[in-house]
Amino acid sequence: MLPFVNNTGLYTDHYELTMAQGYFLSGRHEKKACFDYFFRKAPFGGSFVVFAGLSSVLQMIENFSYTKNDCNYLESVGFDSRFVEYLQSFSFRGNIHSVKEGELIFPNEPALRVEGSILETQLVETLVLNMLNFESLIATKACRIRQAAGNEVLLEFGLRRAQGLGGINASRAAIIGGFDKTSNVFSARHFGLESSGTMAHSWIQSFSDELEAFRAYANHFPDSCTLLVDTYNTLKSGVPNAITIARELREKGHQLVGIRLDSGDLTYLSKKARAMLDEAGFQEVKIVASNQLDETIIQSLRSEGAPIDVFGVGTSIATGQDDAALDGVYKLSFYDGKPSIKVSENLSKMTLPGIKTIDRFVDGENRFCADGISLGHETGYNEIFHPTEAGKRKNVTSCHKENLIHQVMRDGNCIEKEQAPGDIAAFTKSRLQQLPEEHKRFLNPHVYKVGISKELLETRNDLAKQYLKKDSF
Amino acid sequence: MLPFVNNTGLYTDHYELTMAQGYFLSGRHEKKACFDYFFRKAPFGGSFVVFAGLSSVLQMIENFSYTKNDCNYLESVGFDSRFVEYLQSFSFRGNIHSVKEGELIFPNEPALRVEGSILETQLVETLVLNMLNFESLIATKACRIRQAAGNEVLLEFGLRRAQGLGGINASRAAIIGGFDKTSNVFSARHFGLESSGTMAHSWIQSFSDELEAFRAYANHFPDSCTLLVDTYNTLKSGVPNAITIARELREKGHQLVGIRLDSGDLTYLSKKARAMLDEAGFQEVKIVASNQLDETIIQSLRSEGAPIDVFGVGTSIATGQDDAALDGVYKLSFYDGKPSIKVSENLSKMTLPGIKTIDRFVDGENRFCADGISLGHETGYNEIFHPTEAGKRKNVTSCHKENLIHQVMRDGNCIEKEQAPGDIAAFTKSRLQQLPEEHKRFLNPHVYKVGISKELLETRNDLAKQYLKKDSF
Repeated sequence: MLPFVNNTGLYTDHYELTMAQGYFLSGRHEKKACFDYFFRKAPFGGSFVVFAGLSSVLQMIENFSYTKNDCNYLESVGFDSRFVEYLQSFSFRGNIHSVKEGELIFPNEPALRVEGSILETQLVETLVLNMLNFESLIATKACRIRQAAGNEVLLEFGLRRAQGLGGINASRAAIIGGFDKTSNVFSARHFGLESSGTMAHSWIQSFSDELEAFRAYANHFPDSCTLLVDTYNTLKSGVPNAITIARELREKGHQLVGIRLDSGDLTYLSKKARAMLDEAGFQEVKIVASNQLDETIIQSLRSEGAPIDVFGVGTSIATGQDDAALDGVYKLSFYDGKPSIKVSENLSKMTLPGIKTIDRFVDGENRFCADGISLGHETGYNEIFHPTEAGKRKNVTSCHKENLIHQVMRDGNCIEKEQAPGDIAAFTKSRLQQLPEEHKRFLNPHVYKVGISKELLETRNDLAKQYLKKDSF
Repeated sequence: MLPFVNNTGLYTDHYELTMAQGYFLSGRHEKKACFDYFFRKAPFGGSFVVFAGLSSVLQMIENFSYTKNDCNYLESVGFDSRFVEYLQSFSFRGNIHSVKEGELIFPNEPALRVEGSILETQLVETLVLNMLNFESLIATKACRIRQAAGNEVLLEFGLRRAQGLGGINASRAAIIGGFDKTSNVFSARHFGLESSGTMAHSWIQSFSDELEAFRAYANHFPDSCTLLVDTYNTLKSGVPNAITIARELREKGHQLVGIRLDSGDLTYLSKKARAMLDEAGFQEVKIVASNQLDETIIQSLRSEGAPIDVFGVGTSIATGQDDAALDGVYKLSFYDGKPSIKVSENLSKMTLPGIKTIDRFVDGENRFCADGISLGHETGYNEIFHPTEAGKRKNVTSCHKENLIHQVMRDGNCIEKEQAPGDIAAFTKSRLQQLPEEHKRFLNPHVYKVGISKELLETRNDLAKQYLKKDSF
């Protein structure tokens, strides 16, 4: 469970409040609206996103309210006193439908929709974007690193390089995307993750020599001892001393768990260290590697045959480096009984109007073929259309259709049972197995087909015509 | 003031607690230690960093303690019950010395040092790194964007793309680095910043036409009205409608503040819009521009003569994109009465031993010449040495010497008066004026000289010899 969720009403952009005041003062604030969350471009040059952050969003929205002090503050910075009085008893009373947390989603899919009064659906925009964009970014990064690491163990230890308190949700999202454990004790406690960690260089430095430092640690943790071997000289000091300790532990009926390499060339050092450990009869001692790792470096280490059993990843998993943000947006699709659209100079940036749902078409071998976006009431459509390239269409009759959207909040109450991140991770893993390989390639992956129903296409085109009818090129 | 600062003891990496338990069980936990915070490489290809996050660190360290529940949790995941009992009454009782928040700092300078028992100084490592690395990254990015924007207004509105709760400190750091206002209401309230914002596309879409939407907004906010003009067609609809509203406001004795461009080519559109506004007699109406801005794009827009008065910046300021992290580290420099060092295969990564201070050498024209790192007791040194390139030295006799380090925490109590971010920003601005231009260039800036005193050099070399004496190449 996310900490710090009480009275989240100020966790918003100033203009949401300005618009809310405008809606309120003009008596339009109870008009019904629907907003869609979607992104336009998958990060890291990939084709998909692992949808994460849903649980955090729901908790923060359930607690989206204003204290008396918050209200006094808002009045002091110029908000209208009638509006501020209204906010004092405000809570979110709308409905939210969403794909499951951990689902694989693709560009332009309305993965989550928020329905309610225009005022309440507007006010939560920033919060929805902030949490979904970030956790989805990190879960996606984690998923890529997991692809590179195969079945080896992945540890997240990026809190020291995380973007401030952003590290809290980063650790959760890393687990969803496929990491095994985190170093972040705070997140482990609040989200029910497994944390781990052994020693830093400072432990070694605080003893007069490395062997003494290793021995002291092994005495305290005889069954969970991983020794950091690069403080002085990895192959001439660290590994030989670790082997000495491994012998001492074995004599006492314990077992050295591993050694950790944190600098130098990890392929060279891991091969040499593996040979030394094996030679000394310690085939079971694992090699942990860390130092600026990401999916590309891990892929390279493994392709060179580096015998690394555990990868510790910091900056890249905590921040998503090289992409620091997912470009998710929150757009009005329905207002006061009518579908709504935002046109754009660029057809591909035009939004999809109406209250929509997503179907996934799955082939006879249980693999994902394409997704279809349709208006909620459509059921039997068996053709999907390219949203912008006129004429392109795909018949999906031969596929099994699976609806991806379900209700997660009703009248402001979360009706989604909170899932453990580990369970979400298992779901993500199973979905990845259903996604054909060509969409998972790191470099230039094949674009996954996302089409729209004929009725949605026509609704969108009819609305667009109203705005683009004259002289718009 | 940073929210959520109570009982921050779990906001740490697992290995800090493992080591702390080791120190405790071996009876070494009261040994005195000193750790330095420094970074190795300035982000964004720049030469300097704006040091930020000090206030957040101090508040979190003052509240670094464990609740009964935290302790139960730690015992449940395997920590020793004697150690956990010790943690239950633990609080940080050490001393912290630091450069001022907002100071310009350079690679390898020990900008902050934490002194106390090895146990307490170790436990706060993650927190120190997490807050200083992130706020310094963002303040530095803000400073670059401010350089590009000249005297125009800069608005931060990145919360929707921020890394989760990291957005809270991002807004504070943006102001320190030179931004004027933020959209983030939460941070504005907690840190005393000025927030601002007007309308999104959804406001416009919720009316049957753009003019009606503009008029309704202007009625509610006649003196703070900035109209978003790109929902349908910027030059054919948005700007003409804005001019209509500007006339209506003027007739009623008010004034349209601005229009906002959020898509399309900002140079082309701002020039056209400026001409239309001027032609209609509204020279005073400002042009606000947003959409994926950063220092490079702003520099380009201004060099093309785009008449933009206000820049709204989102993703790049909230996340630091393209650099998502500052590589700051926290290294043991003194332990149990003796200077300590971490050697490395790479001389440039060897740490500086001992309790140190930083002096800044300033020339007769009040410009920064070089910085010197020395052991605290040295006062009269007048030569500084390149830390790794043997023989390189610089005489600083002709310069005025300014010490940069002062105490900010004594025995666990913050003795630094909390400064408003705006005041810190004013300090940063004044320091930037003292930094010669060649160090501020975006592309390949001149490296600022940071040397070490002769005594520090000799202490470092003597210690290094102990570890590197045999066969270490």
